[in-house]
Amino acid sequence: MGLAEILAHFAVDRVAVSEKMAQAIRFSLFDWATVGLAGRAELVARASRAVVLAEGGAGQAALFGGGRAPARGAALVNGATSHALDYDDTHFLHIGHPSVAVIPAAIAVAEREDVSGAALSDALAVGLELACRMGDWLGRSHYEAGFHQTGTSGAFGATAAAGRLMGLDAEQMAHALGLVATRAAGLKSQFGTMGKPLNAGFAAEVGVASADLARHGVTSNPDAIAGGQGFGPTHAGAARESAWAGLGQDWAFPGVSYKFHACCHGLHAMLEALRSLREAGLKAADVEAVTVVTNPRWLAVCNQPAPTTGLGAKFSYRLTAAMMLAGVDTAALENYSAELAVRPDLVALRDRVMVEADSGLTDTQARVEVTTIQGVRLPAWHDLAALADAATLEERLREKSHTLIGPQAEEALWHDVAALGAASNIDMLAARIGG
Amino acid sequence: MGLAEILAHFAVDRVAVSEKMAQAIRFSLFDWATVGLAGRAELVARASRAVVLAEGGAGQAALFGGGRAPARGAALVNGATSHALDYDDTHFLHIGHPSVAVIPAAIAVAEREDVSGAALSDALAVGLELACRMGDWLGRSHYEAGFHQTGTSGAFGATAAAGRLMGLDAEQMAHALGLVATRAAGLKSQFGTMGKPLNAGFAAEVGVASADLARHGVTSNPDAIAGGQGFGPTHAGAARESAWAGLGQDWAFPGVSYKFHACCHGLHAMLEALRSLREAGLKAADVEAVTVVTNPRWLAVCNQPAPTTGLGAKFSYRLTAAMMLAGVDTAALENYSAELAVRPDLVALRDRVMVEADSGLTDTQARVEVTTIQGVRLPAWHDLAALADAATLEERLREKSHTLIGPQAEEALWHDVAALGAASNIDMLAARIGG
Repeated sequence: MGLAEILAHFAVDRVAVSEKMAQAIRFSLFDWATVGLAGRAELVARASRAVVLAEGGAGQAALFGGGRAPARGAALVNGATSHALDYDDTHFLHIGHPSVAVIPAAIAVAEREDVSGAALSDALAVGLELACRMGDWLGRSHYEAGFHQTGTSGAFGATAAAGRLMGLDAEQMAHALGLVATRAAGLKSQFGTMGKPLNAGFAAEVGVASADLARHGVTSNPDAIAGGQGFGPTHAGAARESAWAGLGQDWAFPGVSYKFHACCHGLHAMLEALRSLREAGLKAADVEAVTVVTNPRWLAVCNQPAPTTGLGAKFSYRLTAAMMLAGVDTAALENYSAELAVRPDLVALRDRVMVEADSGLTDTQARVEVTTIQGVRLPAWHDLAALADAATLEERLREKSHTLIGPQAEEALWHDVAALGAASNIDMLAARIGG
Repeated sequence: MGLAEILAHFAVDRVAVSEKMAQAIRFSLFDWATVGLAGRAELVARASRAVVLAEGGAGQAALFGGGRAPARGAALVNGATSHALDYDDTHFLHIGHPSVAVIPAAIAVAEREDVSGAALSDALAVGLELACRMGDWLGRSHYEAGFHQTGTSGAFGATAAAGRLMGLDAEQMAHALGLVATRAAGLKSQFGTMGKPLNAGFAAEVGVASADLARHGVTSNPDAIAGGQGFGPTHAGAARESAWAGLGQDWAFPGVSYKFHACCHGLHAMLEALRSLREAGLKAADVEAVTVVTNPRWLAVCNQPAPTTGLGAKFSYRLTAAMMLAGVDTAALENYSAELAVRPDLVALRDRVMVEADSGLTDTQARVEVTTIQGVRLPAWHDLAALADAATLEERLREKSHTLIGPQAEEALWHDVAALGAASNIDMLAARIGG
């Protein structure tokens, strides 16, 4: 059996979802809807929505920002919108953002096909898992060559989720996955532009389109993923066969990582380490000096020493360390501003922070040491790959949502996501997206 | 200026089209509509049409096979449909099929925007020219790595044509071209499947989408074509800078080659050489032996010695040589059938044909020698790259169209294409597509 056939069987067969996986799906769905709602006023969100609404058509699925569109268009809009703030989940094995490609495709088709919440949940399981493992299979070589796994492996995951909800059989699914191999795409050279969130939207859209075409009888080359001149070989894929071990039994997706700070992911391990010191009672007034130690690759990414803009602040170890120590909410978008970047107390704190590199740390790890004015040394450490327990994650995801979309919307969204497993359709969830 | 900016200026500025270019556009438009109409009953055409029609929406543009759809959907359907028979034009510099990606995007947007025939013609000029030169810039290395220029460079050409018809300014156009760099795609590993015609449809569709998004304010990285980890560098592009020489002054597109036989392009030079002998009076009954000499790369492509199916016949030097010598119309789709493949007189002729390779021939050249029963040797030669004069091309394009869509439709289509330059809108042409 070729790879497309193996993946197709996984995508259409009965799934046995572990409790951890079910929880990860709920958390990611909640977080995805939160950041989509928070991003709906971004230009890329408004532009893609305007393009799709101008086409009109069957109101099959709700759009962030309001209005309805055919499923394919809704997948595009909601994918781009949910990645607009770059505040969605990340999976370090996948090397990208699984939810923003898979969930919009799945939700749009689930609404169109009027399936149950449990069916949506199963489709999310196969789509998110497949995106992660495909990202792992393509590997670091694919990413380093310039491809954006969010768009590329995301398109395969979106196809699996969409096709399952359409009721494709294994043969149709293999054709859908073979077909999406010819258009899965996305370049990292779009980072810093609206092309980045659109990569997520395009992946979601082509997933729906590939599944729709296969349902209408289109056939393709199921060997076009891993076979000669298939997607992997033509896109610097590492072909890491270990990526498929235990497929259908074990779940890789629950290793997903959430963003709790509205800034570059390279800063998060440091912010978590400082947060633990703050929670243990450290006050800004007591800080004499701060040493931050991080993986060297981040120094080229997010080490602006003295930013003066909101965007610059999002890429500054020193300033965000100061924000955390001073009790500024690093989850809130509006706290990354030009005003705040030059606020005297923060600048004073910032100038006490020194950043060092240590290649012994992975890119999810950071070490900090705060020396107090009393001369006490307070070390702390954080690894984003070490998952928090469910209760802590829940609390922090809800806090983040509360900050981004307000208490009422957060409460309603949390309730609807929790109730999804027992829901006979996904209308309530769709109403939250459109609201 | 980056490449996207240079191309953007070419795409939006006033164009000075040579008479040869204007003629090539008319011929390609006529041929494209012919093969699109002839292909509308193919499964890939019906499937993509069904997907798009199920979405509904504004009836902005006509579809092959009837019905109307938003421009983006129409581009997808008409692109896939016009490439379904693989009977459309080819450009050997582009290394692909320019018309099936560019024309569907241009026509759909032209109809939506209600522009004049002259405006459509100018948009086709920049789109077809840009697709060809982009294919040349990406080069043989891109093709050999596994990419299908019809889909990849086609998407850039489609974006240019669509964006021009939308009235984008140079900056918006540069963003549209930078954006399409993140989703231009297409694998040769789809050859022999419905993924191949869909590569054309997808290219047309993403061209319209990229232009639409740029019009609504989306920005991208205009360096994402040729710059670091841009489309060329990440897709085995040869970066042949000579491809851009004389852009805006000279036109490369008129080197386009038309198919006059409903079979693999590797057979056409041989068929033309044999045709010249037949036109000089050679009869099948006089044939004792035939030697065909071709570029060695074709032997792995279209040298089935004794096919028994219609599809096999399309990839057989020996059988199609017999068909040509026996006066069977090699332009007619229905003549590639299982019945005809085993017709005794054709099999007898076929068994007199010997195929040889000569690496001194280019892949557009073939040499034949027929020995008659009287012992006379009749050599002939053809090079597809040597363009026929306009009168001959016109006659053969109309003959082909006549064979494929019938005399009335051919006559009407020819008339509408000829009248396009003076037409205030493209409604007549759109009516032919939809009819």
